[in-house]
Amino acid sequence: MLQGRSLVGWSRAAGGEGTLHGYNAGTGERLEPAYGGATAEIMDRAANLAASALPAYRALPRRRRAEFLRAMATELEALGDALIERVVTESALPEARLRGELARTTGQLRFFAAIVEEGSWVDARIDSGDAGRKPLPKPDVRSMLRPLGPVAVFCASNFPLAFSVAGGDTASALAAGNPVVVNAHFSHPGTAEMCGGAIVAAALKTGMPEGVFSLLFTVGREIGQALVAHPSIQAAAFTGSRKGGLALAAIAQARPEPVPFYAEMSSVNPVFILSHALGERSDALAAGLHASITAGVGQFCTNPGVIAAPAGAAGDRVVAALAGKLAATPEAPMLNAGIFENYAGKVAARSADPRLRTLACGKGSAPSLFEATVEAFLAEPDLGEEVFGPSSVLVRYGKFEEALAIAHTMEGNLTATIQMAAGDEGEAAGLVAALETRVGRIVFNGYPTGVEVCQAMVHGGPYPATSDGRTTSVGGRAIERFARPVCYQDTPEGLLPEELREGTTGVRRMVDGKYV
Amino acid sequence: MLQGRSLVGWSRAAGGEGTLHGYNAGTGERLEPAYGGATAEIMDRAANLAASALPAYRALPRRRRAEFLRAMATELEALGDALIERVVTESALPEARLRGELARTTGQLRFFAAIVEEGSWVDARIDSGDAGRKPLPKPDVRSMLRPLGPVAVFCASNFPLAFSVAGGDTASALAAGNPVVVNAHFSHPGTAEMCGGAIVAAALKTGMPEGVFSLLFTVGREIGQALVAHPSIQAAAFTGSRKGGLALAAIAQARPEPVPFYAEMSSVNPVFILSHALGERSDALAAGLHASITAGVGQFCTNPGVIAAPAGAAGDRVVAALAGKLAATPEAPMLNAGIFENYAGKVAARSADPRLRTLACGKGSAPSLFEATVEAFLAEPDLGEEVFGPSSVLVRYGKFEEALAIAHTMEGNLTATIQMAAGDEGEAAGLVAALETRVGRIVFNGYPTGVEVCQAMVHGGPYPATSDGRTTSVGGRAIERFARPVCYQDTPEGLLPEELREGTTGVRRMVDGKYV
Repeated sequence: MLQGRSLVGWSRAAGGEGTLHGYNAGTGERLEPAYGGATAEIMDRAANLAASALPAYRALPRRRRAEFLRAMATELEALGDALIERVVTESALPEARLRGELARTTGQLRFFAAIVEEGSWVDARIDSGDAGRKPLPKPDVRSMLRPLGPVAVFCASNFPLAFSVAGGDTASALAAGNPVVVNAHFSHPGTAEMCGGAIVAAALKTGMPEGVFSLLFTVGREIGQALVAHPSIQAAAFTGSRKGGLALAAIAQARPEPVPFYAEMSSVNPVFILSHALGERSDALAAGLHASITAGVGQFCTNPGVIAAPAGAAGDRVVAALAGKLAATPEAPMLNAGIFENYAGKVAARSADPRLRTLACGKGSAPSLFEATVEAFLAEPDLGEEVFGPSSVLVRYGKFEEALAIAHTMEGNLTATIQMAAGDEGEAAGLVAALETRVGRIVFNGYPTGVEVCQAMVHGGPYPATSDGRTTSVGGRAIERFARPVCYQDTPEGLLPEELREGTTGVRRMVDGKYV
Repeated sequence: MLQGRSLVGWSRAAGGEGTLHGYNAGTGERLEPAYGGATAEIMDRAANLAASALPAYRALPRRRRAEFLRAMATELEALGDALIERVVTESALPEARLRGELARTTGQLRFFAAIVEEGSWVDARIDSGDAGRKPLPKPDVRSMLRPLGPVAVFCASNFPLAFSVAGGDTASALAAGNPVVVNAHFSHPGTAEMCGGAIVAAALKTGMPEGVFSLLFTVGREIGQALVAHPSIQAAAFTGSRKGGLALAAIAQARPEPVPFYAEMSSVNPVFILSHALGERSDALAAGLHASITAGVGQFCTNPGVIAAPAGAAGDRVVAALAGKLAATPEAPMLNAGIFENYAGKVAARSADPRLRTLACGKGSAPSLFEATVEAFLAEPDLGEEVFGPSSVLVRYGKFEEALAIAHTMEGNLTATIQMAAGDEGEAAGLVAALETRVGRIVFNGYPTGVEVCQAMVHGGPYPATSDGRTTSVGGRAIERFARPVCYQDTPEGLLPEELREGTTGVRRMVDGKYV
């Protein structure tokens, strides 16, 4: 079934720039088939095909784009156990989690289909003209969000379905009316090919223009970098490491015409435990933190990497319980050899770091917990850097002002969590004020892992959590990343997009300053 | 009345880094007082004061921010003829235009006051929780746009009121809940000080926190550049030259934590005349183009710098009429000596350029019109570059495909204009498809100069028209530049911003996916 070739429009391209193999993440065994790396010529063809598909694709009625997105979901489901089997093998993630992730992925596609079909997201605005206005006539001014143009999507390793070929970036970019060229992640090429095939099948069944979707298997970094620099590409989205995200962001910025680049990169997701919460539910906190740290072998961008807890006996009990649970958790296969080596190396460095005390540290990919003093943590920012995997740094604070100082020194993060109970309200308010300018989402009495797909979700945050803190890669607002407002002044009815025409109903619009 | 000092919060700072004078733009006469250039220490104080004002300012109820903006308008009006007299002197723009610009400026302040007070712009979204959902409980997720933090505003020379100290950038940044530090334009320091004083008076009368507004007079570029790099500054807005905008944008991007930078830089605003329009109203076209090219001595960012007109006798008549009108238009004082020298130098270069034919060219700042062949224009992009002032390049096309090729080769622009009549619909549709990805606003049967302040206006466009083509610096959406979504999960009512609380009414919100 798998062919090991890039998908360029409706065709397969054998490639030739080196060869890529999937691996069984649990055993290290090499998987077939071999994937030929896309050449510069193949990439160029995919990007130009995307540009040539833009006029027809963006002009489709909303209903047609929604049909395409829903057909993608149906085709993914039709892959059935074969897809689950391959993604379990390539990622070593548990089957139940991956079945859930598939449901999330198809759910996201239908979520964006509903948003597109409903149509209000385009923020249509009409200001009526007035030819008799003095001293100058008032023009008729209308505007709405319109597609940016072809989007390059770089897949994540840690969500091989939901943040990969048919994931949220692809779904929202297609929903907004943009053709997409996906750069597959080397960590799950078989899964990528299966999902890409499902998208092509859906595009053919729903009559989409060729080029609306292409999928490139690339070896090394050059072709992906050239894709971001390609003049046909008008925006790009990336989920992965800070190093990788910044390198591509710099390319997007250095183009003769810079384009928006959305990288979701790194986050340590600090958890602040306030004193009354600690007194009230220390067992639940230890169990909850353990579950959040170890979920998916710690391979979540929302993994809690920094924990601030009060000093004192109650805190000691929680820390001891948490450390015990972490120490008793065996190692498990990680997504790929590179992630494992990075984790093992960084944990070894933490173990040897005289500024840190080791509270738990198993072997290989097993979870680990280290403790830093408030003074060291505040003075030396590298102690708060992300270690991708199930490793956290604990800081015990005496006065609340120390917890606040920790909040103030944090870099931009996807999330921050506040564990509070009755009596903690004042301190919680102080933390919220500090965190509101530093994170995308503040979680109360929960854990940062687990990102609900809903209209209100924000999965973003100031640099370096992302390269553009005004955006989110999950939730309804994700579609807005791939559009920009275009204004039409005194425009004949027949030349207006449907959402701006006189008779249009069913789409929420702002007419003369009022929503109707 | 004028003191020649920067305004740092409620205090005046004498400065010391060189000295700045205003000039009578009509006569060249030097004006009093001398302005002491802000030192690095003064700038640092203003930026840090802005950061210290942020928590109190962003926490104010919407009504209070609206009161502040309306008080600014009132205080500006109270300056009366003294302000008009000074700005006429410093800019050499006609008094009637400047009275209109003042009305626009106070109108913008009240426009944003109304937007803030109404409150829907924050895009409040609530997704209700469901503790009983299987397999996992559904959290309560709420989000809305929140202020970015202190904003640096760089003033334009060509709108000394509407795009300057109390102009649209300041109004929208303050409306969004951000303190502002303004870098005055050297071209109108007296006007800047008067407007800054009005803002401080309004802030004091409405009880704003100190630091919500500061105004710096800077000599040279260093202090302004350091302001963009200052860690307290979280966004910046600029209106001016491409060179200046790109230099500051690069600084914003190179910071340890990059921040959004909104530069509105350069645009040639192509006008496409289609054949039936030419046949139907050649006299009106010549008169309208002449008025648009010469308005404000061509010193508009929406000045029509490229005109594509059909070859043939009807086109010849329009071109001859336009060239005649331009040749008969005398020179007039420009905003400052630098702008005049730039214009005169570039017009001299165009006159001597063997690729161009001179159709009209007066002396000094008088308007000029040059003609390029389609072949030369398509092959040599420098022929389409902006000359700030009343100079345009005409291109005569034979087949419509040549007009379409011109549209396809244009860089990003603020506007494009299509002059059409019955019979031109097909060609107009082709141009719209080409221009929708290249401009912020498409004008039909009008002229690009004149930007209506209304909810639907887009005064933006892809690079290099601006540094962020997803935004606008005029109209309701301008406020969105200075905010980002923040999400609150399972948050106690008392810790939520007002717009996300249960009992809130009057603000349009999206609740469980539906607008209410």
